[in-house]
Amino acid sequence: MKETFDVVIREAVPDDAENILAASKQIGSETDYLVMDEDGMELDVVDLSYQLAALYESSNNILLTAILDERIIGIASVKADHKYRVSHIGEVGISIMKEYWGLGLGSLMLEELIDWAKASGEIRRLELVVQARNQRAVHLYEKLGFKTEATMERGARNDNGYFLDTILMSKMID
Amino acid sequence: MKETFDVVIREAVPDDAENILAASKQIGSETDYLVMDEDGMELDVVDLSYQLAALYESSNNILLTAILDERIIGIASVKADHKYRVSHIGEVGISIMKEYWGLGLGSLMLEELIDWAKASGEIRRLELVVQARNQRAVHLYEKLGFKTEATMERGARNDNGYFLDTILMSKMID
Repeated sequence: MKETFDVVIREAVPDDAENILAASKQIGSETDYLVMDEDGMELDVVDLSYQLAALYESSNNILLTAILDERIIGIASVKADHKYRVSHIGEVGISIMKEYWGLGLGSLMLEELIDWAKASGEIRRLELVVQARNQRAVHLYEKLGFKTEATMERGARNDNGYFLDTILMSKMID
Repeated sequence: MKETFDVVIREAVPDDAENILAASKQIGSETDYLVMDEDGMELDVVDLSYQLAALYESSNNILLTAILDERIIGIASVKADHKYRVSHIGEVGISIMKEYWGLGLGSLMLEELIDWAKASGEIRRLELVVQARNQRAVHLYEKLGFKTEATMERGARNDNGYFLDTILMSKMID
């Protein structure tokens, strides 16, 4: 049996703030693969609205939402500093509601981010940190051309206090 | 001939904000070894004062100043997130006015940071990113027990737009 979903992926706008906060809290509580926990983004709606407006205007930052039946089920972003010496470096983050893991949504969103980065004219290095035990994510990033630069000892810890290795991966954009 | 300096190293307090901003602008303009450029910290005095108060109270953050004749000539910090999954990771930053390079001040400040981290009971990993060409800094970090985890391609660029490798280093704290 093959299920199909009518997922829409689009850039976030200020009005999405409330839905993004709700989604991030749920996602953070469902997994300790992420730095974000059950507190989600730890922002209020007004602050996030302003940030989304700024991201929307920024040429080296993007925040994408995956929407199913008017509900946000995934978030993908590239964040970069505005300082010239590092403004070519985009940090990738992807988080997806657990019930939609394994359906190819991460791949779809990452491809969008890479296409956006290539078109940006600003981003020349994408990088990310992923927990070593999150093999599904590591394979996804490898499939789309990311290479391992380091294994970081104690790069994270789970909610029981155990230290975890994280992997630093990057992809050059030309 | 051996010069001696009466340098005092102490934790920053809110009243230091103005002097720290001035020092950071000068340091950022003197070198492109740092991410920080001639704009310095890009904060105003009031905002930095509040941040310094919060840092002073924080158990996993610290900002040290090196003071000579009432003038701040160096800044050293450990920054950590408050989120539990990564709050054991402290990012080290050291910046020193160019006329005081090579006198052992970096070593002195880094030793202070390591001692503080050991006593914190919270920091279990110190990490930093340094430009590969900044060999003096790399050797200093190695001397005090930091190990290379990665060479990061295009981890920075200089003010002429040339990409530079950076090195990710870490030291476990037990």
